[in-house]
Amino acid sequence: MVAGNDIIARLSRLDSCALSDAMDKLGLPPALSGMPPRTVPGRITGRVMTVRLAEGPPPPGTAPRHLCSAAIEAAAAGDILLIQHIPGLDAGGWGGILSRAARARGLAGIITDGAARDIDEAREIAFPVFAAATTARTARGRLHEAEAGGPVTLGRVTARPGDYALADGSGVVLIAAADIARVLEAAEMIAAREAAMARDVEAGKPVSQVMGADYEHMLHR
Amino acid sequence: MVAGNDIIARLSRLDSCALSDAMDKLGLPPALSGMPPRTVPGRITGRVMTVRLAEGPPPPGTAPRHLCSAAIEAAAAGDILLIQHIPGLDAGGWGGILSRAARARGLAGIITDGAARDIDEAREIAFPVFAAATTARTARGRLHEAEAGGPVTLGRVTARPGDYALADGSGVVLIAAADIARVLEAAEMIAAREAAMARDVEAGKPVSQVMGADYEHMLHR
Amino acid sequence: MVAGNDIIARLSRLDSCALSDAMDKLGLPPALSGMPPRTVPGRITGRVMTVRLAEGPPPPGTAPRHLCSAAIEAAAAGDILLIQHIPGLDAGGWGGILSRAARARGLAGIITDGAARDIDEAREIAFPVFAAATTARTARGRLHEAEAGGPVTLGRVTARPGDYALADGSGVVLIAAADIARVLEAAEMIAAREAAMARDVEAGKPVSQVMGADYEHMLHR
Repeated sequence: MVAGNDIIARLSRLDSCALSDAMDKLGLPPALSGMPPRTVPGRITGRVMTVRLAEGPPPPGTAPRHLCSAAIEAAAAGDILLIQHIPGLDAGGWGGILSRAARARGLAGIITDGAARDIDEAREIAFPVFAAATTARTARGRLHEAEAGGPVTLGRVTARPGDYALADGSGVVLIAAADIARVLEAAEMIAAREAAMARDVEAGKPVSQVMGADYEHMLHR
Repeated sequence: MVAGNDIIARLSRLDSCALSDAMDKLGLPPALSGMPPRTVPGRITGRVMTVRLAEGPPPPGTAPRHLCSAAIEAAAAGDILLIQHIPGLDAGGWGGILSRAARARGLAGIITDGAARDIDEAREIAFPVFAAATTARTARGRLHEAEAGGPVTLGRVTARPGDYALADGSGVVLIAAADIARVLEAAEMIAAREAAMARDVEAGKPVSQVMGADYEHMLHR
Repeated sequence: MVAGNDIIARLSRLDSCALSDAMDKLGLPPALSGMPPRTVPGRITGRVMTVRLAEGPPPPGTAPRHLCSAAIEAAAAGDILLIQHIPGLDAGGWGGILSRAARARGLAGIITDGAARDIDEAREIAFPVFAAATTARTARGRLHEAEAGGPVTLGRVTARPGDYALADGSGVVLIAAADIARVLEAAEMIAAREAAMARDVEAGKPVSQVMGADYEHMLHR
């Protein structure tokens, strides 16, 4: 059992590639692609809070509440909001006031497999948005919140509140809380070996020698 | 009736999301997606001049004229050139000399649903190009100008010279001249309410309360 | 016959659009699209070294060697590595240690029709990566090197070691060594005429006059 703060500190020293490799090595789902940073470059990492969106207006009788607002309030400082959208649907599952509210609560950023809007506004306040697409269209009448705080599935990987995420310029990794200790351990081993290899390569050692059999097999050990 | 300069001044204080919401509220076509800024970030707004391109070389007997050149000359300072291309066709409907000529005439930028070229050159002279794709391939033999100054259709929205456009990092909005007064009025109302909500959220008011029933219903009033 | 260094010097004063036009004029394949700069903006040009990747793990009995490592060592300073990947396959045909090794050997950059990873790391060391996609997933078990130093085909254009490439924000041009002299000559003529036209346009001459019949027909002379 590893303490939450310690996990975040360790995760934030890794990147999506080392984590994807660790997930591969452990037989877990590797990184997801196609959700690049849309506002600021760099890496975000944190525990996840979740929102699942569904197509169309909310069912009759639903109390009016703006999508993602309850999840922002349920999240803790440092958390990442993970939003299951409808990939390809041209409507913003995230917007400018939400970015401001999320930043005010100290959230690390959001990740969604759909479209986000108010991109320039989020860039101005330096709030990280990793999204499959951008749009100016509102969610109103096009999308509603099906559930906050339940399981979400992005690209065939399911995550729940309390799981972990890291996103950077290469990809997005979702790690179940139950797996975090062994994923961290494997990723740190991989990152340490790659750092040593990077030093060797930069010192002029031939890359074919540095990235030989050891490297090729290191995920199978 | 609103004077042209006043319209541009008012439009330039809005963004694509507020305008898209206003269009939704009035039953008009909302913003278009998939034409991101390719050269410089930021927002452009202006009256539109139009060009419609067609596939293949010009019909025999056509006087040789470079596509978009007549439209640049027909445009006024501050106008946006709106270019209907053939989405998916790999040939530049816009290029470097056109960017220089458009900047020399004071055009605000161009928007196209197809490919533009000389992207680095346009970035160097800070000329805004919103385009569905980028290419190095010339239009010669692949595209010709079917009409300048007539109606154009981008993503199922038709616009004519004298209509208005705004493009930013979230999307592109095309507004018919006949609708501009009521769209501005609706968008300014929306933007004012969102600015108040942004202030509330940044002051620490719970976002679920700020974005409650009022917000959800504000497009239906 | 033109000396190699002179070719690179002349190429580096051109861009992908002038070269694409020259290729068109000579009946050669024009520029390729869809491989934008993923790490740093700007133009790369050089002779090419090649790698061809294939799907799946290496065949049994293959000596373990990391993909692209032999090609980096076979390349000369200033070369561009041209990597034929499997377009659409979500696995990195290029990564961070390779970027470091390539930079250490003075390579100009890489171009691939598939996915590259460790994008933030390559950006930090300012190594140019032109790639169709980005990913965090390793090649291990998903891709192997079929051949280094042989012919590669990207977007229906085949290139071999010793051929030439230029990539910039508009596109990627591959030029066979046997064609380089006449392509350079044609592209320099085009670039000189376009530079004169740019000067005319910036001096206020009407663009329809500058880009008249001469421009339209200049690729047919």
